Amino acid sequence: MTMVNAAYGQLPPAFFFTRLNDTVAAYELAHPDKGLLRLGVGDVTGPLSLTVIEALRRAVSEQSRRETFHGYLPETGMAFFKAAVAAYYGGRNVSLSPDEIFVSSGAADDLGALGNLFSPAARVLVTEPAYPAYVDTSRMAGRKILHLLGTRENGFLPLPGDDLDADLVYLCSPNNPTGTAYTRPQLQRWVDWANDRQAVILFDAAYEAFVQDGDVPRSIYELPGAKTCAIEICSLSKTAGFTGMRLGYTVVPKELVREGFSLHDMWIKDRTTRTNGVSYILQRAGAAALSPEGMVQNRLAIRRYQENGRILSDVIARAGRWFTGGRNAPYLWLPCPEGKSGWDFFQELLERAQIVVTPGEGFGQGGEGYVRLSCFGSREDTEEAALRLTKLL
Amino acid sequence: MTMVNAAYGQLPPAFFFTRLNDTVAAYELAHPDKGLLRLGVGDVTGPLSLTVIEALRRAVSEQSRRETFHGYLPETGMAFFKAAVAAYYGGRNVSLSPDEIFVSSGAADDLGALGNLFSPAARVLVTEPAYPAYVDTSRMAGRKILHLLGTRENGFLPLPGDDLDADLVYLCSPNNPTGTAYTRPQLQRWVDWANDRQAVILFDAAYEAFVQDGDVPRSIYELPGAKTCAIEICSLSKTAGFTGMRLGYTVVPKELVREGFSLHDMWIKDRTTRTNGVSYILQRAGAAALSPEGMVQNRLAIRRYQENGRILSDVIARAGRWFTGGRNAPYLWLPCPEGKSGWDFFQELLERAQIVVTPGEGFGQGGEGYVRLSCFGSREDTEEAALRLTKLL
Repeated sequence: MTMVNAAYGQLPPAFFFTRLNDTVAAYELAHPDKGLLRLGVGDVTGPLSLTVIEALRRAVSEQSRRETFHGYLPETGMAFFKAAVAAYYGGRNVSLSPDEIFVSSGAADDLGALGNLFSPAARVLVTEPAYPAYVDTSRMAGRKILHLLGTRENGFLPLPGDDLDADLVYLCSPNNPTGTAYTRPQLQRWVDWANDRQAVILFDAAYEAFVQDGDVPRSIYELPGAKTCAIEICSLSKTAGFTGMRLGYTVVPKELVREGFSLHDMWIKDRTTRTNGVSYILQRAGAAALSPEGMVQNRLAIRRYQENGRILSDVIARAGRWFTGGRNAPYLWLPCPEGKSGWDFFQELLERAQIVVTPGEGFGQGGEGYVRLSCFGSREDTEEAALRLTKLL
Repeated sequence: MTMVNAAYGQLPPAFFFTRLNDTVAAYELAHPDKGLLRLGVGDVTGPLSLTVIEALRRAVSEQSRRETFHGYLPETGMAFFKAAVAAYYGGRNVSLSPDEIFVSSGAADDLGALGNLFSPAARVLVTEPAYPAYVDTSRMAGRKILHLLGTRENGFLPLPGDDLDADLVYLCSPNNPTGTAYTRPQLQRWVDWANDRQAVILFDAAYEAFVQDGDVPRSIYELPGAKTCAIEICSLSKTAGFTGMRLGYTVVPKELVREGFSLHDMWIKDRTTRTNGVSYILQRAGAAALSPEGMVQNRLAIRRYQENGRILSDVIARAGRWFTGGRNAPYLWLPCPEGKSGWDFFQELLERAQIVVTPGEGFGQGGEGYVRLSCFGSREDTEEAALRLTKLL
């Protein structure tokens, strides 16, 4: 009789970011005079918008007085924040009922918990390279994992073939780490495939606010048929700089039924059993961030990151190098020079140009031989990195 | 091939609180002139202490400036808050390493996630009546559940017999809903039993700050041997009035090893995979709440609730009625008059005294025939309830 979930023992040790951080720290220690340009992390550089700060201050004041104090909250989220999210989708002509919106502490948390709804027998398909948690949480649940690889040939936008079979599919568009994004017809192929196979798509829309091209959907629900096959996970981390705030939401449509079970009802049951909801003050901050006034400020911040994307894209394109991303997502995905691994190229960029990138190996299968550049650096660092890359490439 | 976790379909519909709330709402509608005294909910009545409010304001200001902005945070919690928790335990002579402390969004969230570490084959023992999530999350994982019942005979403090066998045991002391609390020798029996059987205790310490008696441990780690058999889940909800803030912590000792697996290492892996940590501003608020200055204010608030407990206890004792609780926990647990169910007595108290309590049926096996009274009401409501109970009992 075993009591421990032995699947945890089969996970690779989490050495990737340890190795990355240790290497960078060692280089910095040995070369304290050389300014490092950090294009590795996918974190915003802040600060929060004034609209959000004011909402936080008001909410904190409410919590300081008995008459306006909020104790326990609805587990799936407060009506005012759900309404703000519904209105945000409404602005893109996606109609959601507020009770299809579940407030979370961020996309990572819900991606970690949504697996609860499925059996260990569910066959998982991960389009890779990918955010590592898709594979790791599936492994922790003891599920069989199929990998569908992004490649230079398919432009890092893999599509389902007729012979593809799986129960759960992780899609992330706009994509981390490759910066690619499915067009409407491409994503429709996934929706049709999922409805056909009775599969469920877990659609990670964390980077939706970066979409610039009109033919790229920001929500999977922009496509006909998506409500009968897709759960959408989103976050304010990248939309409103909430990485240190922790607030997101997941949409589970009422039409989503599998094997006679309403996944919507199951998720209500899951959330009301496993959480007591998200902090009142964070939900007030979130509603402010998604308000028309808040969105004006969010877009200004996003535009700065998009401009960084253009700066880096220009330099790489001028050097005649093929790459993906930099337009609809805050990442660029760059092949390494012939025969070099992501780690080799990472090391070369660190030593020769003092630029920190992320080796593609950190994103699972299909990542080797690539590096990811982030657009979340400051304008100054990005410009300086562009100059150094011009010399190097 | 099934892809859905069918165990969710076997859960009873969540009608308990719907029925309770609907009944109270209907009564209020029919009798708008009769003031209801709400001793049903286990929620604090706030507000947050001044120390916490000031820390929140400072943290919000930090998030408003690029120089002091915090983005992504360590998944298991920030060093300053872990240090505050370790110091809080240190004040009770419990020595914890900060990296044994895992910051959470509250006890409910971690109780919902800790099951990840164990296999579906783990046999779960729940001491009941209990917080319903222990049973429900175990059912969702498809685990076999054994029930060990609190009764009038064992004073609602069930202890392990020699023949008791299980892998995982949920203990809550001080207890919700019965208000009882294990003494040191009693809890030691559980610790010794668990070490003997290689079982793991999930110790819910959410009400530790209410302990008044010197022979009642506030942490299971006050007992020798606990670090090799127990995980402690705690929260600032009741300690510092954080029910609407959502902040807690879980202790997984490094010595806790089962079947060759370090549960400590497994929990690090789980948290770093399934979450991106807890909001910076909430952790600053938590550190302020656990500071010496914050604890002075927490204790004043807790003393008010404890005084409510004394008021209610006096009335019930004077009426010659047996009950548990009201001293080391903010709940009283009262048998219904002969032959009445919890629902019957709930209805009677509502109609004859306009007092809202919680029927024991909401807390699983062993709850029928009892009601729970909460000490979280205002002083005025509690005094009025005491007067009305005097007439009724």
